[in-house]
Amino acid sequence: MTASSHASRAASAEEVLALVRQFARPLAAESVPLDRALGRVLRAPVCAPEDQPTFDRSAMDGFAVRLDDPATQFRVVDETRAGDWKPRSLQRGECVRIATGGALPADGLQVVMKEDARAADDQVEVLRRGTERNIRFRGEDARQGQELVPIGTVLSPGALALLASVGHTQPLVTRLPRVLHVATGNEIVPPDKTPACGQIRDSNSTLVRAFLSQFGILPHQLRVPEEEATAQPEVRSSISEGDGVDLVLLSGGASVGEHDFTRRLLADLGWTILVSKTATRPGKPLIFATRGAALAFGLPGNPLAHFVCLNLYVRAALAAFSGRSTEPLFQHGLLAAELATEGNARETYWPAHCRVGDGVPALTPLRWASSGDLTSLATANALIRVFAGCGKLASSAPVEFVSTTP
Amino acid sequence: MTASSHASRAASAEEVLALVRQFARPLAAESVPLDRALGRVLRAPVCAPEDQPTFDRSAMDGFAVRLDDPATQFRVVDETRAGDWKPRSLQRGECVRIATGGALPADGLQVVMKEDARAADDQVEVLRRGTERNIRFRGEDARQGQELVPIGTVLSPGALALLASVGHTQPLVTRLPRVLHVATGNEIVPPDKTPACGQIRDSNSTLVRAFLSQFGILPHQLRVPEEEATAQPEVRSSISEGDGVDLVLLSGGASVGEHDFTRRLLADLGWTILVSKTATRPGKPLIFATRGAALAFGLPGNPLAHFVCLNLYVRAALAAFSGRSTEPLFQHGLLAAELATEGNARETYWPAHCRVGDGVPALTPLRWASSGDLTSLATANALIRVFAGCGKLASSAPVEFVSTTP
Repeated sequence: MTASSHASRAASAEEVLALVRQFARPLAAESVPLDRALGRVLRAPVCAPEDQPTFDRSAMDGFAVRLDDPATQFRVVDETRAGDWKPRSLQRGECVRIATGGALPADGLQVVMKEDARAADDQVEVLRRGTERNIRFRGEDARQGQELVPIGTVLSPGALALLASVGHTQPLVTRLPRVLHVATGNEIVPPDKTPACGQIRDSNSTLVRAFLSQFGILPHQLRVPEEEATAQPEVRSSISEGDGVDLVLLSGGASVGEHDFTRRLLADLGWTILVSKTATRPGKPLIFATRGAALAFGLPGNPLAHFVCLNLYVRAALAAFSGRSTEPLFQHGLLAAELATEGNARETYWPAHCRVGDGVPALTPLRWASSGDLTSLATANALIRVFAGCGKLASSAPVEFVSTTP
Repeated sequence: MTASSHASRAASAEEVLALVRQFARPLAAESVPLDRALGRVLRAPVCAPEDQPTFDRSAMDGFAVRLDDPATQFRVVDETRAGDWKPRSLQRGECVRIATGGALPADGLQVVMKEDARAADDQVEVLRRGTERNIRFRGEDARQGQELVPIGTVLSPGALALLASVGHTQPLVTRLPRVLHVATGNEIVPPDKTPACGQIRDSNSTLVRAFLSQFGILPHQLRVPEEEATAQPEVRSSISEGDGVDLVLLSGGASVGEHDFTRRLLADLGWTILVSKTATRPGKPLIFATRGAALAFGLPGNPLAHFVCLNLYVRAALAAFSGRSTEPLFQHGLLAAELATEGNARETYWPAHCRVGDGVPALTPLRWASSGDLTSLATANALIRVFAGCGKLASSAPVEFVSTTP
């Protein structure tokens, strides 16, 4: 199937995803400091610059003695605290008081735990002595050159700590995408304004901004009436002139009616329309287009359709941009309550609350009265995939779902 | 069991958690704009300020006709686009061209879908007409005063969109905690410096900062040698003088040795020590203390112990501070590979990679060579709970685990 064959017919969710993954290429890499690297995708493996640990360290607070010294009475000849390094050889009957993390003063030693000894002034009596050396030896965690963090890793707090521990303070990661979001629609007013009859508040700008912020992305956002969008210089230049925008999101104006201008706007400005409707609901009038390496989505104005399209398609685009290895979109769980569907001809993504913890995820379908009903968004954290023509699903039925948490 | 009884003996993870939840009280509420409210906990329910939708809206692009008009030929007498409101009564044989979202001009109408009609100039022939009115009626999603978002909700992008849609642009949420983090230890150098023999790079400051940033918290961080920490005015004043810090995290210096100064520092400055060691590993020398409404943790210097204590105890403190309803800490999954433990006398939190998707979470134990081995942190996203005395666990064995993702 060619890309262009989708443009005129309704594409399945899987077909849209396949196209998104085909056209969204990993963005360039950049070096960033550790405090800006959380959640970013590593683009070059990080290897140990030297043996880890870099020196033999005591694993305990105690007394370092010669391994070949069977004495039980020792004289404290030195003290090594963490951070110190005082190389010296020990004679039989001598010990060095050493703290956890302290560098061993010589090879061939054993650390007797503080709890296994009795100390008074510079005299130590060893009460118990096992075979455990209580030393973390140089290189026992990793050898110089060994790969510590593989390419493609999403940098977690733990991974960043590992990078810090080996001095890798400017990791090479994928840059963040530059995103333009334009909310159109003659009927919308900003959320802090009172709409007149016929008008509604723009909730999609809030949804898009918060959705993207989960990925560390701060979009440039505009709110313009449809009529003005085509003529507005800022919109035209951002969308058309290759000024470095990686992703364009256009909210609203994607219905089948006379105000369906998103497709014309994109086509007029040189974009290739790959999808102009889907076989799924909500979100049927989705547009997906490309121009060079940039992607554009025309998102149906209905906020629930926005929610679904962001979590299905835009999420996949962000993952592909970041160079993240593709994770399966669909997870498996069990219905926690009946899902009374009427056997819709289109595949449906039903808002749900997913509870994890007891092994298999449990999904409670949420109320969804109409295409414009947002009330389920208060607690939705998943979308249940209801296949085309599927009728009522009983409680405990196995289902596929998409998580909407980041 | 009283709180003080824990201070001198090893507390179980559950006992520490119970104490944390007992002493960590929800912080004050504050109103914030929507673009700062993601992930925050709602402290007052949000109700519909008016019926939702606020007017009868067309659910389709089409033609509004009288419900009681059986004609098939209509004359277009007006046009209503989204955002318009043009109240008018219709006569038989008259219709209004209406766009999805447009306000119905009168009661008692039906919208015939554009696809079910043929239009030429101002004449419309209805080809198919069902009983569906294709109208979203005023109040069908929610009635004025109805609760939309309950108290305690963690505000997701979808919940924020719902708030925007009803003009609730300054939600009341729990304020973020003020956190002080002090990394001590004579042996540590900043991650971008080359340590001398005996020294190590400070990875705990990176770990703590990234961990907290997942909750939107930017800590104040200091790095001071142990000897200077007690005398340092900034440390003393931050920890002791009630200047509004909610949570103090002290890294390092919590071993059993002579450098165990965290407990003394906190006690000297008026804190009540509730826990000074745990029966778990890693993370045995944990300190938990309170002073008024503030909490302090002394975190063992070993970064893996840090990772465990942050994800077990500090996470619970942050949840309690935020007013989040308590979620079960432990989830249930299956081992994806054998876990070769040696039956340690202490309960162990073993670093693991958790894969979700196929129903029951699958946990792969990661390499953990020693208490200082950080290599597992590259990919760890879970901690498997291995009960005290538990020997080898076979692949597919059911296990409890803690997720370390936010």
